[in-house]
Amino acid sequence: MKNSFGQNVTVTVFGESHGAGVGAVLDGMPAGIPVNDEFINHQLSLRRPSGAISTPRVEADNYIIYSGVYNGFTTGTPICIVVPNENTKSKDYSLDRFLARPSHADFVAFEKYNGFEDYRGGGHFSGRVTTGLVAVGAIAISALKQKGIKIGTHISKCGGVCDAPFSDYETQIDDLNNMIFAVLDDKKGEEMQSAIIEARANCDSVGGILETAVLGLPVGVGEPWFDTLEGLLSHALFSIPAVKGVEFGLGFGIADLLGSKANDAFEISGDKVVTKTNNNGGINGGISNGMPIIFRCAVKPTPTIAQPQSTVNFKENVNAIIESKGRHDPCIVHRARVVVDSMVAITLCDALTAKFGTDWWIK
Amino acid sequence: MKNSFGQNVTVTVFGESHGAGVGAVLDGMPAGIPVNDEFINHQLSLRRPSGAISTPRVEADNYIIYSGVYNGFTTGTPICIVVPNENTKSKDYSLDRFLARPSHADFVAFEKYNGFEDYRGGGHFSGRVTTGLVAVGAIAISALKQKGIKIGTHISKCGGVCDAPFSDYETQIDDLNNMIFAVLDDKKGEEMQSAIIEARANCDSVGGILETAVLGLPVGVGEPWFDTLEGLLSHALFSIPAVKGVEFGLGFGIADLLGSKANDAFEISGDKVVTKTNNNGGINGGISNGMPIIFRCAVKPTPTIAQPQSTVNFKENVNAIIESKGRHDPCIVHRARVVVDSMVAITLCDALTAKFGTDWWIK
Amino acid sequence: MKNSFGQNVTVTVFGESHGAGVGAVLDGMPAGIPVNDEFINHQLSLRRPSGAISTPRVEADNYIIYSGVYNGFTTGTPICIVVPNENTKSKDYSLDRFLARPSHADFVAFEKYNGFEDYRGGGHFSGRVTTGLVAVGAIAISALKQKGIKIGTHISKCGGVCDAPFSDYETQIDDLNNMIFAVLDDKKGEEMQSAIIEARANCDSVGGILETAVLGLPVGVGEPWFDTLEGLLSHALFSIPAVKGVEFGLGFGIADLLGSKANDAFEISGDKVVTKTNNNGGINGGISNGMPIIFRCAVKPTPTIAQPQSTVNFKENVNAIIESKGRHDPCIVHRARVVVDSMVAITLCDALTAKFGTDWWIK
Amino acid sequence: MKNSFGQNVTVTVFGESHGAGVGAVLDGMPAGIPVNDEFINHQLSLRRPSGAISTPRVEADNYIIYSGVYNGFTTGTPICIVVPNENTKSKDYSLDRFLARPSHADFVAFEKYNGFEDYRGGGHFSGRVTTGLVAVGAIAISALKQKGIKIGTHISKCGGVCDAPFSDYETQIDDLNNMIFAVLDDKKGEEMQSAIIEARANCDSVGGILETAVLGLPVGVGEPWFDTLEGLLSHALFSIPAVKGVEFGLGFGIADLLGSKANDAFEISGDKVVTKTNNNGGINGGISNGMPIIFRCAVKPTPTIAQPQSTVNFKENVNAIIESKGRHDPCIVHRARVVVDSMVAITLCDALTAKFGTDWWIK
Repeated sequence: MKNSFGQNVTVTVFGESHGAGVGAVLDGMPAGIPVNDEFINHQLSLRRPSGAISTPRVEADNYIIYSGVYNGFTTGTPICIVVPNENTKSKDYSLDRFLARPSHADFVAFEKYNGFEDYRGGGHFSGRVTTGLVAVGAIAISALKQKGIKIGTHISKCGGVCDAPFSDYETQIDDLNNMIFAVLDDKKGEEMQSAIIEARANCDSVGGILETAVLGLPVGVGEPWFDTLEGLLSHALFSIPAVKGVEFGLGFGIADLLGSKANDAFEISGDKVVTKTNNNGGINGGISNGMPIIFRCAVKPTPTIAQPQSTVNFKENVNAIIESKGRHDPCIVHRARVVVDSMVAITLCDALTAKFGTDWWIK
Repeated sequence: MKNSFGQNVTVTVFGESHGAGVGAVLDGMPAGIPVNDEFINHQLSLRRPSGAISTPRVEADNYIIYSGVYNGFTTGTPICIVVPNENTKSKDYSLDRFLARPSHADFVAFEKYNGFEDYRGGGHFSGRVTTGLVAVGAIAISALKQKGIKIGTHISKCGGVCDAPFSDYETQIDDLNNMIFAVLDDKKGEEMQSAIIEARANCDSVGGILETAVLGLPVGVGEPWFDTLEGLLSHALFSIPAVKGVEFGLGFGIADLLGSKANDAFEISGDKVVTKTNNNGGINGGISNGMPIIFRCAVKPTPTIAQPQSTVNFKENVNAIIESKGRHDPCIVHRARVVVDSMVAITLCDALTAKFGTDWWIK
Repeated sequence: MKNSFGQNVTVTVFGESHGAGVGAVLDGMPAGIPVNDEFINHQLSLRRPSGAISTPRVEADNYIIYSGVYNGFTTGTPICIVVPNENTKSKDYSLDRFLARPSHADFVAFEKYNGFEDYRGGGHFSGRVTTGLVAVGAIAISALKQKGIKIGTHISKCGGVCDAPFSDYETQIDDLNNMIFAVLDDKKGEEMQSAIIEARANCDSVGGILETAVLGLPVGVGEPWFDTLEGLLSHALFSIPAVKGVEFGLGFGIADLLGSKANDAFEISGDKVVTKTNNNGGINGGISNGMPIIFRCAVKPTPTIAQPQSTVNFKENVNAIIESKGRHDPCIVHRARVVVDSMVAITLCDALTAKFGTDWWIK
Repeated sequence: MKNSFGQNVTVTVFGESHGAGVGAVLDGMPAGIPVNDEFINHQLSLRRPSGAISTPRVEADNYIIYSGVYNGFTTGTPICIVVPNENTKSKDYSLDRFLARPSHADFVAFEKYNGFEDYRGGGHFSGRVTTGLVAVGAIAISALKQKGIKIGTHISKCGGVCDAPFSDYETQIDDLNNMIFAVLDDKKGEEMQSAIIEARANCDSVGGILETAVLGLPVGVGEPWFDTLEGLLSHALFSIPAVKGVEFGLGFGIADLLGSKANDAFEISGDKVVTKTNNNGGINGGISNGMPIIFRCAVKPTPTIAQPQSTVNFKENVNAIIESKGRHDPCIVHRARVVVDSMVAITLCDALTAKFGTDWWIK
């Protein structure tokens, strides 16, 4: 396993869906970053299931900060936050021990860990594990805020319904970060939620696309050849369960344009160099160019659905039918949003520290 | 800069477009892998410009293997291959020293390296730098072949023209690996090349999409949480200049499906566990499931075009017009193909070594 | 901070002396390693203070395994073990907030973390932090045992008293691993303990030298150029507070010999290649040669002593006198022993996995 | 193999004694560091064999800078320097292909690389490989100079003869860096060289101890828990062939002192915090405290000696006698000196960049 990510700022994740707890260690964060319980709880609440569009498994997410924080500030040492598991109904899962839930990791985990994996509720592959990442991610987001860098993500598509595009980053990002179901057009948001509820009614699930904007990132962040901003962010984003695609700027759409249309012409605005368009999502040559960083993640529909599916019993090596009895989400796009923001914040803290060093943060 | 990638098998890249040479060091490769000059030259020829669809800058790519190879086999020590630069016309570039070519790295490089960057021909950001990666990548591809793993990439879209989809991986991959312009449908390939030539005639450029299939990868490769197969491959792929999107399986298309349609049902085929569909591109939970690994890269149109573009002089901080005089490609999609295969091969050698160790390779 | 170590098997440490708890995450361990609470508690007991030769701060070290273990075996996912802090008397420390204890990290921590460090009881620099390393180290030691690899360390020198040298590794290592005060000659051990008690009576402290032997390590472990066995082990050993020197085989003594005396002649013993002497400590060219791995660590006397010392107040930047009131050890050599074994075990699990892969362990 | 070292500044080494060439890639160095051929050649000359105390294999060390340098300054991109091999007499070595030279890596390399290793002249394990490290190390030393940090190493012991201790770091370091045989007391240096010549006359070899001082390192460098300054430096130093021990400050000698004698009392000197003694070698808690960094390396006598030695033929698995005909050094202590300085400089550039970032260097 490789459960650590980042070089100067490193996050290590641990935990299983039905083990004693989930959590993360965030190392390399500068000393002096304020740690605000209210904000951590706010971020956790954005990830928590809610109402008809989510799983009935709801936990208080009472976290324990074991280290790295003193008198309300980071100390510069590793920050370990654990969220003990509370609401775990293992009996829901044990029956199907050897049945591979389609598009889940059950089969590959059994093969890779030789049958020793903690299979209950998806074990280490469960979305539950992201709870720890959101908790420490809140601290990374606070660090970025202090340097005038903000991250905002909206559900640009869900259940086939498209949200409005960004029109005013500054204010819209602030709004998004206070919404459980983060959309720019409330009417579209309601249509999306109807689609989710309808899918659940049909024992089915839906996916969607998340679009993220990062404002205030200085010019020059990203370390080519290999640690391009796209490479680092995509590496982090694909760790989020269900993400199957990542694109920057126009992404796949840019492949259809002529160079004369795709290129972002530079111009002087005040005393700053800006681009007239932002088809490259604020990144040239893998390095931030001062424009907003724009990217999208494709999130597949929740694999767990309450209808019979054909599969195999990988112990007996025979075909079988599986019918999921466990509690599950008809959609995780809206809950994945804050996980995206958290991973992006941690990744940017790492990239910024590589360029500016540790002391820069509290100057 | 972070010019090394990989943990067990590590590649380090170096060089500038108009410096003494470009090259790479491949470390961690097992001893006993055959190193075949004919194959290395073949791979380099697939990257080399050719005819009307490419830049007139053509070099012999006479490489020097400085280390790590003895009597035609890898020795287990780092393999350094250098390709000296020959055909460099620096005068083409020096005039525009402080003019930022739109969608190029000139501006960010100037800012990041405080004016000390080797700006000639894009310096370290030039596609020329991929030559070394293709040379060492050939050795990684040879290693995979010995274990029955093969990689094939076709131009699934270029200049707005779509290629046929894969229909028979085994034979088509072998064909693709011998084609300069890698398509599954020759007629579509001709239409694509016409689009490229037309774009050049209009002083413009085109982009496209590359689709890759990997066959024979064992079950269980990929190291969640963070080093998922998607995360590792995307990290590697975004290092290739002009790639702006990476998606696995159905990618962004999966976001529109219902779970019941998106899920890949398992079934027993012979004594093997397979899936009826492959919407997840052979990856569950970030780990290979034994099906073909399928992904696509979006390649933007070449930023350098032979028409005037508005930009800035980033030294004077004033608006300006740039007209590119240098030699350039109206399209790099077909040339990027072998770079994709090379980076994928190196990444898989790393992931396989993490699971199986070094000694596995020559068993 | 860089609180993670290792590439294939990675340990991450966290915690402060007077925070909520200390702990570690061990990632990359293969699935299927037995996790035995009795053994973990045994290892923790070897680190725990005891009697007149240690600090009166004694804790039960009741650990919590939050993840990575199921049904008594490792699952292949990260293992997080936390040991909550219980017996913390912060008032002992707060008075001297800005007085630098000589040879402690107080001053450098204040400078490095800009005054945000958790200074209580040495914070993250406290030996208390090693508790988590010993807990996860026990699992690494169990993994090595399964492959016939054993580690043993004795106090070769303490308070000026020398222990007997190793005479029979196999049996002596087993004995050492059951001793609180690990020596090969009990009489010498008593003399050492008298020296410790005498030092305490004089408000002083003593240091010593630990000598370690590793048996059963296969030929070929170690990854030159840089990840030599010496380099990896010394990197790990110098993380143990108070270690100021590391030497392999004859170490510094080899510098005085002629080559003809220092060289270890090879010979055939049965069907194995062995060396007649082991002056190189079982390592040639940074790689294990099949002989016992032998090394020594110099442990400085505990810096904290119950007598007045001249120092500075680093806030006021004035000279001062400090008199330590806190609870402390007159010697930590005997307690550091099990930390050495733990770090060596973790380091060897990493090096072995690099060579043999993950699956090798449970074959 | 793991031939890369360092995280923010990374060096990658490659090459074999009798291959096409040896070299290194230095990545992560800031842009704008002057690259001075005269200084690189000076450093290479300090490593080059000279006269009766060295091997007759002498090479011009004509290096090629392939990348990362433009107009006499680093560009911020990876610097690859290759030194082609010239004077290689392979016939000297091929006869003994399967005879293990005692205390050399021949046997372990054969086992580890399954017989595919380039065995000629020690291959990748040859001291020849350090040439590339010295070349790129010169650039790291230049970078440190710009920040007022200087490194000096003297032969504190050789052939049983002890040099004088450091008495005036500033001036002595400058002198040492211009001496082929670096000692503080010329008379002692002559005695050492006589001992070397005598050993050669007796077909034998001698070892010694190198002592290094680093001046001007700021307070706060080093990243505990694991990347302590001692851990990083020892990891780098043990990569130098023949180094078998590393100690900081009083090192092993500190184990015999009482805490009251070993502790370094702090005091105010001018407006700086200093210590009255420096028994800890300028490092507290793994972090630099502003005092000179002091450490010593034990260098074993050259294993290759011109007298018959008993060994084995590891192919036939039978005992044998080996008589070295190759050209070799009766002592490598004096030549290893500049390799120590080079590795220390690279390691410190990495540690400083972790703390201060890339931009700090040219401020």
